Amino acid sequence: MSFFFRVKTVSEIFGEIKKFFPLEKQTVPLMEALGRYLAEDLICPEDLPPFPRATMDGYAVQARDVFGARESEPVLLRLRGEIPMGVAPDFVLEPGEAARIATGGMLPEGADAVVMVEYTEEIGELVEIRRPVSPGENVILKGEDARASEILLPQGTKLTPGKIGLLASAGITQVSVRRAPQVAIISTGDELVPPQERPAPGQIRDVNSYSLGAAVREAGGIPLLMGIIPDKVEDLFQAIKKALNQADVVLISGGSSVGVRDYTLRCLSDLPRAELLCHGVAVRPGKPTILARVGNKAVFGLPGQMASALLIFYILVRPLLLHLQGASEKDLKLTSVRARASRNIPSAQGREDYIRVKLYRDQDQTLWAEPIFRRSGLISSMAQADGLLRIPEKSEGIYEGEEAEVFLFP
Amino acid sequence: MSFFFRVKTVSEIFGEIKKFFPLEKQTVPLMEALGRYLAEDLICPEDLPPFPRATMDGYAVQARDVFGARESEPVLLRLRGEIPMGVAPDFVLEPGEAARIATGGMLPEGADAVVMVEYTEEIGELVEIRRPVSPGENVILKGEDARASEILLPQGTKLTPGKIGLLASAGITQVSVRRAPQVAIISTGDELVPPQERPAPGQIRDVNSYSLGAAVREAGGIPLLMGIIPDKVEDLFQAIKKALNQADVVLISGGSSVGVRDYTLRCLSDLPRAELLCHGVAVRPGKPTILARVGNKAVFGLPGQMASALLIFYILVRPLLLHLQGASEKDLKLTSVRARASRNIPSAQGREDYIRVKLYRDQDQTLWAEPIFRRSGLISSMAQADGLLRIPEKSEGIYEGEEAEVFLFP
Repeated sequence: MSFFFRVKTVSEIFGEIKKFFPLEKQTVPLMEALGRYLAEDLICPEDLPPFPRATMDGYAVQARDVFGARESEPVLLRLRGEIPMGVAPDFVLEPGEAARIATGGMLPEGADAVVMVEYTEEIGELVEIRRPVSPGENVILKGEDARASEILLPQGTKLTPGKIGLLASAGITQVSVRRAPQVAIISTGDELVPPQERPAPGQIRDVNSYSLGAAVREAGGIPLLMGIIPDKVEDLFQAIKKALNQADVVLISGGSSVGVRDYTLRCLSDLPRAELLCHGVAVRPGKPTILARVGNKAVFGLPGQMASALLIFYILVRPLLLHLQGASEKDLKLTSVRARASRNIPSAQGREDYIRVKLYRDQDQTLWAEPIFRRSGLISSMAQADGLLRIPEKSEGIYEGEEAEVFLFP
Repeated sequence: MSFFFRVKTVSEIFGEIKKFFPLEKQTVPLMEALGRYLAEDLICPEDLPPFPRATMDGYAVQARDVFGARESEPVLLRLRGEIPMGVAPDFVLEPGEAARIATGGMLPEGADAVVMVEYTEEIGELVEIRRPVSPGENVILKGEDARASEILLPQGTKLTPGKIGLLASAGITQVSVRRAPQVAIISTGDELVPPQERPAPGQIRDVNSYSLGAAVREAGGIPLLMGIIPDKVEDLFQAIKKALNQADVVLISGGSSVGVRDYTLRCLSDLPRAELLCHGVAVRPGKPTILARVGNKAVFGLPGQMASALLIFYILVRPLLLHLQGASEKDLKLTSVRARASRNIPSAQGREDYIRVKLYRDQDQTLWAEPIFRRSGLISSMAQADGLLRIPEKSEGIYEGEEAEVFLFP
């Protein structure tokens, strides 16, 4: 492993992330596919809808028959009958005819529009039409939703309820997605005890196993809690080896404070195939982050403080987890909004700053970001934040009232 | 049941929603609590952190000892020793002394600040300090995150990774939340076949069981698919009765088209304890929505078209599901952003319009909402949308370039 000390920018690390291969494909039932990413383009097997359908209750007509119809001069059409739901009409609509149809019903051949029932009246064998319609009005045409053999949804699409509905409409009830990444979480530190235990003076509860575990789950991964490992090289080495056997991604939290960072680097250097991708990232907080690659597996050394560890998770680890799941590039980052800073926020050039903020709207509906200027070691500052205001590398900070990008927590 | 025809506004329906009682409390392990809402205020059991901690690697000092220290005139302190991690120091720091400390270490009594290791040098028994610190610098004070017996997180809080970390830090590993709502989904329509089947001409696949099922899951509920019920009053009545036995909320999709809406109303009128809360909502699309209450259970009659059904789900059903889970009022609606309309969007007064839009930023970072002007019967229009642009009841529409509220899909 190269020990070259490499501080990288976020965009350089994104370049490294994209070199990992997405995980294997697997087929899941559509009902289980919410939030997953398509592993393949899905081709539409047939025209959708497969026949022209009414979108209103009323009468199927030929539009040219009712041209100029109005309240004072209605058009009279012959009632050809009713189109039952779920059945193809057994007649062709001739000029001068109308057929009763309900929303969703199949238009008979010959008909090209539907007049809403509100503008009609049945009089024995006749239907009075009091408004004109254009061809196609109140109708969905065959293939208007999607055409046979076009791409219905491309590879990398995130499956939302609307997209799941679209696939159901095409009869696609099994989809190819990528396996969910297994993410091992190692907490290091002689001062840590499990949260169930009462810490002795000087000891502190292990927070990161829980906060990172929840964040992994939120990002579609499966957290594997490896427990608390003491600050000893051999223990950490064994824990990393075990984690790499079980998981696709290993998160070592605490593994970037001075002592443990050295241990983590030493452990990685003893792994035959490990390649150090970054040792330090041009981001505050979170600078001492480590990223290494072992085959197609990633090992992150994250800061020990919860707020910094979670921040680096959202900025760097989550994008990797989504990439492994086959997400397209535009979906890797958190959703962002633009907001005005409620006060001056200084920053140093040469690194990106991420400031925890609370968002609020004033009475003019302007969105403001109020920085939570509390020490990064405080857990509450992260727990209270709505998102992360980004100050770009080349900026010396932003002024009160200036607009900035704020990444929203999911 | 009263058959009084009641078209209600969204805010009137929100008033009805809030009259439902949140579901029973249950205790879940913290690791399973992501995305759930606290059923009770959580009181902080102890000061957090329970002792003052270093946030940097360096030397614990008394700030007044290093006042005025600088590169050219460093202050020399006696090295009192090293504070091991996870152990309370067994000494009191006297004036003129410094103790080696790592990030997270417990400050000895007497110390009130930490000088970063970068500004120090050990010279035998002495430590040279080249920068001053203020009292409290590079230290988290006892109780600075939270104080014993204050409210750590109030009832109704949504549990995010950051908040889960905060609870872990307080040793709270079991939390009281509300049971997840069971949501029965009934699809009605003689034209429907399950998506696995090939529809005959005039038939169409059942989409809503899938799109609503996914939306229920996304909103923290448990979908129960009751299948496709033919358009017959007795069949629908039996299906609703069965659904009410199993579920907290019943969604009847298709149950608001003319024929089936009448059936739904008739079925509800035959249920002894049903109370009609709304029959029609001042929203487009989705006007023919029905909401009834049976004890503490809700029955929604939703439009049959997927786009309209899903829209009403996000605007009205999801808020009820979150309220049943104990969410606080501010969390019931979808997250919204402000965006400019990319073209004129006309609207009628007296109802809210929700326009499906795609969002994009121009090169000036202005956020634009591009309306997807496609018929509401089209599934693809909903599948492609990023969110719903709201045109308020009293507006006649918005002009190109005008700003409006856009609700983002989760």
